[in-house]
Amino acid sequence: MSGGWSLRDQYAISGVGATDFSRDSGRTPLTLACEASLAAIADAGLAVEDIDGVVRADYDSVQPGDLAHGLGLPNLRYWGTSGIGGAAPCGMVGQAVAAVAAGLATNIVVFRALNGRSGLRLGRGSAVQRAASRPVGGNGGYEEFFLPYGLIAPGQMFALLARRHMAEFGTAAEDLRAIALVARRRANANPAAQMCARPLTEADYEGARMISEPLRLFDFCLETDGACAVVVTSTERALDGPNPPALVRAVAQGSGPRPQAGTFLTALMRDELLTQPSAAVAELLYQRGGLGPADIDVAQLYDCFTITVLLQLEDYGFCAKGEGGPFASSGALDLDGSLPFNTAGGNLSEGYLHGMSHVLEGVRQIRGTSTSQVTGARTCLVTSGIPAATSALLLRAA
Amino acid sequence: MSGGWSLRDQYAISGVGATDFSRDSGRTPLTLACEASLAAIADAGLAVEDIDGVVRADYDSVQPGDLAHGLGLPNLRYWGTSGIGGAAPCGMVGQAVAAVAAGLATNIVVFRALNGRSGLRLGRGSAVQRAASRPVGGNGGYEEFFLPYGLIAPGQMFALLARRHMAEFGTAAEDLRAIALVARRRANANPAAQMCARPLTEADYEGARMISEPLRLFDFCLETDGACAVVVTSTERALDGPNPPALVRAVAQGSGPRPQAGTFLTALMRDELLTQPSAAVAELLYQRGGLGPADIDVAQLYDCFTITVLLQLEDYGFCAKGEGGPFASSGALDLDGSLPFNTAGGNLSEGYLHGMSHVLEGVRQIRGTSTSQVTGARTCLVTSGIPAATSALLLRAA
Repeated sequence: MSGGWSLRDQYAISGVGATDFSRDSGRTPLTLACEASLAAIADAGLAVEDIDGVVRADYDSVQPGDLAHGLGLPNLRYWGTSGIGGAAPCGMVGQAVAAVAAGLATNIVVFRALNGRSGLRLGRGSAVQRAASRPVGGNGGYEEFFLPYGLIAPGQMFALLARRHMAEFGTAAEDLRAIALVARRRANANPAAQMCARPLTEADYEGARMISEPLRLFDFCLETDGACAVVVTSTERALDGPNPPALVRAVAQGSGPRPQAGTFLTALMRDELLTQPSAAVAELLYQRGGLGPADIDVAQLYDCFTITVLLQLEDYGFCAKGEGGPFASSGALDLDGSLPFNTAGGNLSEGYLHGMSHVLEGVRQIRGTSTSQVTGARTCLVTSGIPAATSALLLRAA
Repeated sequence: MSGGWSLRDQYAISGVGATDFSRDSGRTPLTLACEASLAAIADAGLAVEDIDGVVRADYDSVQPGDLAHGLGLPNLRYWGTSGIGGAAPCGMVGQAVAAVAAGLATNIVVFRALNGRSGLRLGRGSAVQRAASRPVGGNGGYEEFFLPYGLIAPGQMFALLARRHMAEFGTAAEDLRAIALVARRRANANPAAQMCARPLTEADYEGARMISEPLRLFDFCLETDGACAVVVTSTERALDGPNPPALVRAVAQGSGPRPQAGTFLTALMRDELLTQPSAAVAELLYQRGGLGPADIDVAQLYDCFTITVLLQLEDYGFCAKGEGGPFASSGALDLDGSLPFNTAGGNLSEGYLHGMSHVLEGVRQIRGTSTSQVTGARTCLVTSGIPAATSALLLRAA
């Protein structure tokens, strides 16, 4: 059983590219998208004329035609979008794989570009305020029932999940701290990470301001300006490129058995607050890939907040439900642990590219070129955001 | 050569559904989307639980999770979006075909829902005004260079294309009139069409007010509230359904050799004003389908304006470039002509569902259930909007 998926290892990421990550890029998202795309195309050993497809993220301000015009693509014959928000990137890669497999395109650029710090700051809840301008009771987001109470920003919602996890399972602030500190150590080794030169100690973490209890400053990701892109093509073509490809062993999207409307606040309306769509996606992903958690050499886990990582450790089967805290504190996530994670620093310490940088770092691990390389890594789990829905990838060495 | 496409006739539309079309639905887009989707699911002989994928249009306010929540889909494992605007529907079907072929989903609902008359009226240029709020020079739409001159609405832009066609090829107002009158006759036979009970004479057309010269009232489509949906699955599964499937012989998206940024005004910045992306898409579509214009029994051509139809008659090879006017006036488009078109009344006289209703009417022709059935129709061309980019489908009887 492979859940209907029959394309194991037949399609691949052949190139990756990124801009610098900063708090004020000084360029438009389109300029950032073009820069990252050109880098990915060159990394794949291709010319601009070879690109005939574009897949973008729903929150991106850059439309397919904008990028095609900016790059001067003479032969665009596939474009599409995936979402929702940070849940998009792995699903975007999956959509590109399907399009290439169907013969709708040959080499597809998958990108995410944003001025997430100098432009619209999603962490401030602006996106929710925008969404709430939709008709009341209209499209099911129900933001209007949260806004009057000041519940508006992602950090507030994830703080409630963290509090619930603490109440139900005895999870401690130190468990979240362990996640933040490991991510920072990986960033300290990565010159491209925004926090490369900024070590983080236990005392720094404890002394930082509380933003939304129990989440402190360093439990939050870094709002970032920048762009990331990859090229998706057939494994056969990718093997002709100048760099080792990362094979797509499996991909999965899912919203779990009870899909939620809206962006993220409706996750609070689930029957069981700590049941995330990642549990359903993990099951489907492993089934499609014919692999399990024991086969994962390294993981790039979406980390808008530390608690997001902790929940996924349970959902992707690295520990039992409720055991995420002790698992995180055990040292398992460090470079010499059983599950090295977010080896470029992740959203928490490299930069928040809405999950797209996790795909790039997954490719680097498979290629053996990470600044925190896991020796002999052949299988990498990459996940995208929760809680409304999510997506995930299993990448493999050829 | 099939342009990389190897899925001829292997995937199909197994069900279609629509709401009523009106000027004031009194329901939200989500309610409309659910209603059309439930109708399509029933028409495919499926239950809600059988649907595991959702594909939407970029301009739709209904997100995949909104529809999944509204319908109560317990097993959503694929979602995606296509665009741009009216160019989306055929590409949406193509994306769904690719996802089913890749094994990412089994039965996908493809939908478009809008309160296009009682809500945001795209014809008024509101969408352009919104787009222009993007940073100047930012994402390449360049709307800021048109707005100061009052060039803001789609009708104004297409009027310039019509004027150019008249100047270059001697196209006459009577040629556009012929298109409007044929579409209205088809609507007069279709109880679901908004203009079913409203005959249109040559005198009515001539006497109507000029909106954007040379385009008069009846050269414009009907801003409409409503929703349309189809179910995409494998042909094998579709053949088990209660109704005849429409096989996807081929699908194509394209933006032509010089892609344009933005939504539609940048089409005026092309080197050659009358070269539309439909020419490139037609070539790719016929190549993929192994068919040509002579094989088309009936066509559903995107008709935001009459001139849009005329341009496509040339681009899809039914007449030579510049001959669209005489061809339209020749009677070829009528029910007994060589190319019966928009047999439900189209955007001009049935309702403007942003191109999605054309897909539904294409299926009805293949099934033999149109209210203006073309006898023995086995191959139907369906096109989506121009001018920024476009997409098209070839549907075939099993």
